[in-house]
Amino acid sequence: MVNLSIIGATGYVGLELVRILSTHPNIRLVKLVSQSYVGKKFSDLYPSLRGICDIECSALNIHEIAESSEFVITALPHDASKDIIPTLIQLGVKVIDHSAHFRYKDVSVYESVYKTTHELPELQAQAVYGMPELYRNQIKDATLIADPGCYPTCSILGLAPAIKANMIDLSSIIINAVSGVSGAGRKADVDYSFCELDDNFKAYGIATHRHTSEIEQELSLLAGEAITISFTPHLAPFKRGMLATIHVNLAKDVSTEEVLACYQTYYKNEAFVRVMPLGTMPEVKHVRGSNFVDIGVMVDRRVNRLVIVSALDNLLKGSAGQAVQALNSMMGIDESTGIKVPGTQI
Amino acid sequence: MVNLSIIGATGYVGLELVRILSTHPNIRLVKLVSQSYVGKKFSDLYPSLRGICDIECSALNIHEIAESSEFVITALPHDASKDIIPTLIQLGVKVIDHSAHFRYKDVSVYESVYKTTHELPELQAQAVYGMPELYRNQIKDATLIADPGCYPTCSILGLAPAIKANMIDLSSIIINAVSGVSGAGRKADVDYSFCELDDNFKAYGIATHRHTSEIEQELSLLAGEAITISFTPHLAPFKRGMLATIHVNLAKDVSTEEVLACYQTYYKNEAFVRVMPLGTMPEVKHVRGSNFVDIGVMVDRRVNRLVIVSALDNLLKGSAGQAVQALNSMMGIDESTGIKVPGTQI
Amino acid sequence: MVNLSIIGATGYVGLELVRILSTHPNIRLVKLVSQSYVGKKFSDLYPSLRGICDIECSALNIHEIAESSEFVITALPHDASKDIIPTLIQLGVKVIDHSAHFRYKDVSVYESVYKTTHELPELQAQAVYGMPELYRNQIKDATLIADPGCYPTCSILGLAPAIKANMIDLSSIIINAVSGVSGAGRKADVDYSFCELDDNFKAYGIATHRHTSEIEQELSLLAGEAITISFTPHLAPFKRGMLATIHVNLAKDVSTEEVLACYQTYYKNEAFVRVMPLGTMPEVKHVRGSNFVDIGVMVDRRVNRLVIVSALDNLLKGSAGQAVQALNSMMGIDESTGIKVPGTQI
Amino acid sequence: MVNLSIIGATGYVGLELVRILSTHPNIRLVKLVSQSYVGKKFSDLYPSLRGICDIECSALNIHEIAESSEFVITALPHDASKDIIPTLIQLGVKVIDHSAHFRYKDVSVYESVYKTTHELPELQAQAVYGMPELYRNQIKDATLIADPGCYPTCSILGLAPAIKANMIDLSSIIINAVSGVSGAGRKADVDYSFCELDDNFKAYGIATHRHTSEIEQELSLLAGEAITISFTPHLAPFKRGMLATIHVNLAKDVSTEEVLACYQTYYKNEAFVRVMPLGTMPEVKHVRGSNFVDIGVMVDRRVNRLVIVSALDNLLKGSAGQAVQALNSMMGIDESTGIKVPGTQI
Repeated sequence: MVNLSIIGATGYVGLELVRILSTHPNIRLVKLVSQSYVGKKFSDLYPSLRGICDIECSALNIHEIAESSEFVITALPHDASKDIIPTLIQLGVKVIDHSAHFRYKDVSVYESVYKTTHELPELQAQAVYGMPELYRNQIKDATLIADPGCYPTCSILGLAPAIKANMIDLSSIIINAVSGVSGAGRKADVDYSFCELDDNFKAYGIATHRHTSEIEQELSLLAGEAITISFTPHLAPFKRGMLATIHVNLAKDVSTEEVLACYQTYYKNEAFVRVMPLGTMPEVKHVRGSNFVDIGVMVDRRVNRLVIVSALDNLLKGSAGQAVQALNSMMGIDESTGIKVPGTQI
Repeated sequence: MVNLSIIGATGYVGLELVRILSTHPNIRLVKLVSQSYVGKKFSDLYPSLRGICDIECSALNIHEIAESSEFVITALPHDASKDIIPTLIQLGVKVIDHSAHFRYKDVSVYESVYKTTHELPELQAQAVYGMPELYRNQIKDATLIADPGCYPTCSILGLAPAIKANMIDLSSIIINAVSGVSGAGRKADVDYSFCELDDNFKAYGIATHRHTSEIEQELSLLAGEAITISFTPHLAPFKRGMLATIHVNLAKDVSTEEVLACYQTYYKNEAFVRVMPLGTMPEVKHVRGSNFVDIGVMVDRRVNRLVIVSALDNLLKGSAGQAVQALNSMMGIDESTGIKVPGTQI
Repeated sequence: MVNLSIIGATGYVGLELVRILSTHPNIRLVKLVSQSYVGKKFSDLYPSLRGICDIECSALNIHEIAESSEFVITALPHDASKDIIPTLIQLGVKVIDHSAHFRYKDVSVYESVYKTTHELPELQAQAVYGMPELYRNQIKDATLIADPGCYPTCSILGLAPAIKANMIDLSSIIINAVSGVSGAGRKADVDYSFCELDDNFKAYGIATHRHTSEIEQELSLLAGEAITISFTPHLAPFKRGMLATIHVNLAKDVSTEEVLACYQTYYKNEAFVRVMPLGTMPEVKHVRGSNFVDIGVMVDRRVNRLVIVSALDNLLKGSAGQAVQALNSMMGIDESTGIKVPGTQI
Repeated sequence: MVNLSIIGATGYVGLELVRILSTHPNIRLVKLVSQSYVGKKFSDLYPSLRGICDIECSALNIHEIAESSEFVITALPHDASKDIIPTLIQLGVKVIDHSAHFRYKDVSVYESVYKTTHELPELQAQAVYGMPELYRNQIKDATLIADPGCYPTCSILGLAPAIKANMIDLSSIIINAVSGVSGAGRKADVDYSFCELDDNFKAYGIATHRHTSEIEQELSLLAGEAITISFTPHLAPFKRGMLATIHVNLAKDVSTEEVLACYQTYYKNEAFVRVMPLGTMPEVKHVRGSNFVDIGVMVDRRVNRLVIVSALDNLLKGSAGQAVQALNSMMGIDESTGIKVPGTQI
């Protein structure tokens, strides 16, 4: 059993981590830190966990946490996590962070996108981007993991095989993505109220969404050259789930079958990537509640384009689930421990 | 054309009033008062109204309003409306108020339910409860209307014929009601966020909801004796609509057909009450987007109880629509002017 | 490992059983029978299970099933299951049935409610009503389990402690219940299409729903006298979940605290019944995706009534989950094996 | 008053037509033809219309209809409408058809896309594509209108100004669109059941959707050269509404402001096209329940692409509303009569 604490436990990513880790066979939850709910039982805030996790939320005491926990997962805003993580690392704790702070190879990109100064470039240099499909070996031995964003996970995994196979025009990547509302976190904001979002559908952050740079970084590394993309996120009226429809011009004359074979080969050893059979496509309901990302492909010969559809649960493969995947690696156990669970579909 | 201003125009009841009155043939909207959005075009806040109502929101200037408007509708919290209305009335404006402040015949009931002191008992004495089906004659000549609450409208209209016909045991009234989320208004509150309410269903305010006293007041007046009820509201995952399922013990041996005949007779001249045919029941989708209240009845002989189901749109017959019904009366025109519109059903 | 087959595997209850049992540590799924999808992989029909359960659906071959399976769960219509179960039992298979066929102590009640003749009264006599909280000892040794209905589970567990404590007027029970749409099963029916149900809310089957008789049977057995109830089901726009709001007149002068203490004592050893703390009430989101039933109580002194709210997931504690609870008992293992999982709340 | 009948009145487009035309000041509804509901009152099928339209549905009697009605609107499948319309036209009736049958300038395109033989090429030659923004003059004098598809309306109006201004690379058009479920019509089909679609999101008909050819026809006519596009429709969990996110490579160096000015000029006289102010974008809730199409634009300099977002209500501007717009033109009255109504937003 490994001791683990969560800082920022009462947001939706925190809730999801608590839910998963409460029944994880190798983890003992120690501290659930939440400044807003100190002294409140986690299960009083989230009664779905009554009888499963009745730990009381505590204030942040870094030393106490470091003494009691081998691992810490932080689910905090960018600014908040950067003040805590260096001390934790110094005290020998391994950390998985959910903010964007440590996701960038080039801190100047982070600084320009997030309009701030990055004060921890050395720590950044140690951090590993926590996507097991791309960085499995580094994750195993990491002390600091930057858990990827949800849109980047959905987009990068959808494009990786096609890029590695040199089959697409790298200047033509257009990603149209749709997220459930929980992606925005737990907040008191009229714009995220039920009456404003139910039955609605909208694009947002057109040409400006911060995840664009994170996607571009990883796609560029895969391609070995700088890639610039169009990324357009949308908000749909469901709580969790994400689907990206990706359009690219083909650089080779390939059939849907050939593209499919390429994807199947690329992901053949992956526990959580499912390539959809010919003629079928992912849907949000197929992945919601699970750590799977489903990917389907279709060549449109009329326009010589490839359409890739990828879907995942933004709170699982898109955040908390992927974090546990990394955590399992870091503990040296099977990557799918505690998260190889199907969604409910209905 | 009559000049009308709305104070508290940017909440959901205000939005609904603007929407209806923008196309009302006898009304010219003058001022839309909203302290939070002074200078902002109404249609920038609610783009559904672009090209329909592009008036700029203004600050509250009571004298300016009184000079320019024969009618004012207030859609404000209880505390706020009581500070404004006396002056408006004094300056000769007719007012329709959406708060609970002027709904109570007995100010001490208001004081105990709303835990405050009622400072305007004389004005209260002039106010008319704005339910045309019960107070049509008084509404016509009123200077101050207290627009009824949504739950009270749904409940009182569902019970009135049965009470007037002495067919039920008055001590046995149990009202189980369900509201859409817009009933809580427009607000930044985690509890009303999409992620907390979508796919959810819950009871709230059991044995304590403030509308209980309003329903009891009107039922007691109908019965000619004091009635105490069970009222249990619930919140369902849709934006607008309301349905009450009412259970009462029968005091007479009557059939469903007889009860139905009684209801049909009672409401035979009403433009906005539709009694459902034998064997059919109201549904929220039948009334949403309209000013109708639909009512169905069924006698359950096994238990000697009458089940009454009534449904309405909480933002129309439950608030803004009913206010316009009263407004039409006060203007001396057909009560259904501008609001005899069917909902979309789909 | 115990071998188990499911007959009627591709309906929603079947799907839920496959989902749970695919990861159950003591069960090996053998046959998934579905007449409509013979030869189709279960995961092609329900892609959420790709990589988890890729068994091909098969035609019904009773002898093959009986040879290969110690347990069979049937999730079929009433008429269909009665033709299969006797043979299975005869061949030594233990059966858990989801139809209403074997739920009635008195076959004449079944016959009058379901308007048919019960051809298997002897088998009925052996059947055990599969609610562990009431029939744990009989379930352990049963060969045939009648899995309870969803509304009955929600209602009976909500009322049992109050009835056993003689604190309520047995003639006053009024149950107002709300179900998610999956309760109606998987079907091609305009009335259950998205456009007809989304955003809608309605009562149905008023005074006539067949579950009424099932609830009355079990409440009468608990009380030791015949009970007649009012039961009014409603349909709400979510897929899974159920909430019952129960109103009863108090026969004793008790406080909310006393009622709560009574409920806590009654259910103190139950793994899946959670009595809500004073002042809090169940919500559908607290139980969805789990096998829990949550129960809250509140005394309304003004009207001398007790309000009980109980909630569960209709596909879990309301059907498939409760079946697995019984299955675990019959296998002699911990009743919560494979189903002690919290829902996702969000 | 003009007499009008609807053939295929009980589908969702029919419902929407009845709803609009029941309160249209210049129209008298004569016959509502529905083979499935002969003799049933329209308002028994759709109770939202009780007291508004209680006409009984009738069987199809073409001569009776032609004698009593100057206009007929058909809302039938492709195959069905082609058997009825020639006779109606011959008998002097003006027809607005909702099928795809008469939408194609080149019948061979229709034949290849719809996999059938077009038996009425002469009638096709008379038909006018009923999009007032493009064909206002022809509509006025038409005897047969082919009401455009919903996706084509949303896409074509979104692209027309940019194409006419020669600002985009015509080979680069990628349309990613999302529709509400009512676009599929009223049907008993498991795939359109509530449990399969609620909370879900999916792409469908990738590279094969039939509306692609209709969009290409009109864009090619606007451009004066043949255009081939990528069109990818999606299904979202709401009943009505549509939003298209369109990506195109810029052929000119233009700013968002310049594109916006171009769009505002192009649509400056249109009653139902609203170009969104700089920095704002359409949302489904802004147009639902109205005949408006809202269009927003944004230049993404990093990739030299233009993103266009257009939104409409698929049952209004996407079908029934646009049909009434054409009808008004054909009657010689203001095009917006009876349909200049804002949506409810909430």
